[in-house]
Amino acid sequence: MSWRATILTLFPELFPGPLGASVLGRGLGQGLWRLDTVDIRDFADNPYRNVDDTPAGGGAGLVMRADILAAAIDSVDDQTRPRIALSARGRPFRQEVARRLADGAGAILVCGRFEGIDQRVLDSRGIDEISIGDFVLAGGEIAAMTLVEACVRLIPGVLGAAQSLSEESFSRDPDGRTLLEYPQYTRPRVFEGVEIPPVLTSGDHKKIAAWRRDRAIEVTRARRPDLLGTHSPVDEGPLRDRQKNSDG
Amino acid sequence: MSWRATILTLFPELFPGPLGASVLGRGLGQGLWRLDTVDIRDFADNPYRNVDDTPAGGGAGLVMRADILAAAIDSVDDQTRPRIALSARGRPFRQEVARRLADGAGAILVCGRFEGIDQRVLDSRGIDEISIGDFVLAGGEIAAMTLVEACVRLIPGVLGAAQSLSEESFSRDPDGRTLLEYPQYTRPRVFEGVEIPPVLTSGDHKKIAAWRRDRAIEVTRARRPDLLGTHSPVDEGPLRDRQKNSDG
Repeated sequence: MSWRATILTLFPELFPGPLGASVLGRGLGQGLWRLDTVDIRDFADNPYRNVDDTPAGGGAGLVMRADILAAAIDSVDDQTRPRIALSARGRPFRQEVARRLADGAGAILVCGRFEGIDQRVLDSRGIDEISIGDFVLAGGEIAAMTLVEACVRLIPGVLGAAQSLSEESFSRDPDGRTLLEYPQYTRPRVFEGVEIPPVLTSGDHKKIAAWRRDRAIEVTRARRPDLLGTHSPVDEGPLRDRQKNSDG
Repeated sequence: MSWRATILTLFPELFPGPLGASVLGRGLGQGLWRLDTVDIRDFADNPYRNVDDTPAGGGAGLVMRADILAAAIDSVDDQTRPRIALSARGRPFRQEVARRLADGAGAILVCGRFEGIDQRVLDSRGIDEISIGDFVLAGGEIAAMTLVEACVRLIPGVLGAAQSLSEESFSRDPDGRTLLEYPQYTRPRVFEGVEIPPVLTSGDHKKIAAWRRDRAIEVTRARRPDLLGTHSPVDEGPLRDRQKNSDG
């Protein structure tokens, strides 16, 4: 069975959208991965198809109802895939989370809108909240696309031999460091009077590797000194709690 | 003049895509913000419309050519908006970057594909590399959508009065702390035997505020202890270098 993403959303028509383009779209067509959607509104219990209500305790915005979302989740009869809600208050999504998810059967992704999701359905259905970054979006759809793209490109066969998975940003170098990628150059050799760094056209593979490693350290130091420091506490495992929650 | 996003991409047909849905789509229709695309292939100098070539120095993948991307960038006659390439090796995109960008005239966004972009065009055209997170995508398109969504929802009028901008995740609380958002609840009062926490239905606004603050600290401590620690070095300003680069 190929890797499968199920998206619970109020906007099923947005999928596959950008996930249907380029190499991911080709992989979808070839059955290397699968995508389906569940329209949360189909589980509304009222003629207006409302799925939300005002926050208990007051405040702006609307909160997605526990009972309706629970019905939508329960319609996906699959206990093997982790359940994830995309939310700014979630644990950080990182490359190692993408790798772990890509190694599994897929993911069931809940896209919030409004002010949030009733906490009780997150608890009772073992839904992990995951955040793609320290910023706030209008809804979870684009965040879900981000997560799916990061996972699916890791599935064997999707990128083909054309792209390298081992030398890219957030892979570890032989010393175990996580580095950003070195700068890239291609033809023409001279662009607006600026040459490609001569070492790269020298044919000396040892020198090229050393130059690239030094540039990778340089750019990482300038932009992400945190990656060169000690192990960050936010690496703590999303998807670990899930096991705990789903027992309850 | 309303806020404007110009997207340079090999897949212009993907836009507006999810950016055309819901409140963002409504704002686009109302002219509260604008979106246009530039097809990078229109600037290819060969009958196959190739825009990439093999990396100087060897390695897998393909690198986007400096001359072709420079021509595409130069076709956008606008010195007022920052130029940003979405890239895993960029500086982190965060809520404060979204705020800064939303306050400006807009953004010119370059979506990479392949292995990367020739460094010389990034340097010569003052293009900032920005990363939406510590993971790798197949291309910059979904990352660009993420950035645009985070910015556009901050533009006055886009969200309307329905949603609060001040109490959400990554806003600072009165003590200057950045906290994740407290849990939300809504009707029904009892869901599968679990009640909404009674304090939220007590009507006591002081107690509700205190409860929410405690829960926000609790969830932040559990999921993002880094936010409660010292100021992170990666807060260093993306978009600051650009001023420097654009002089060169």
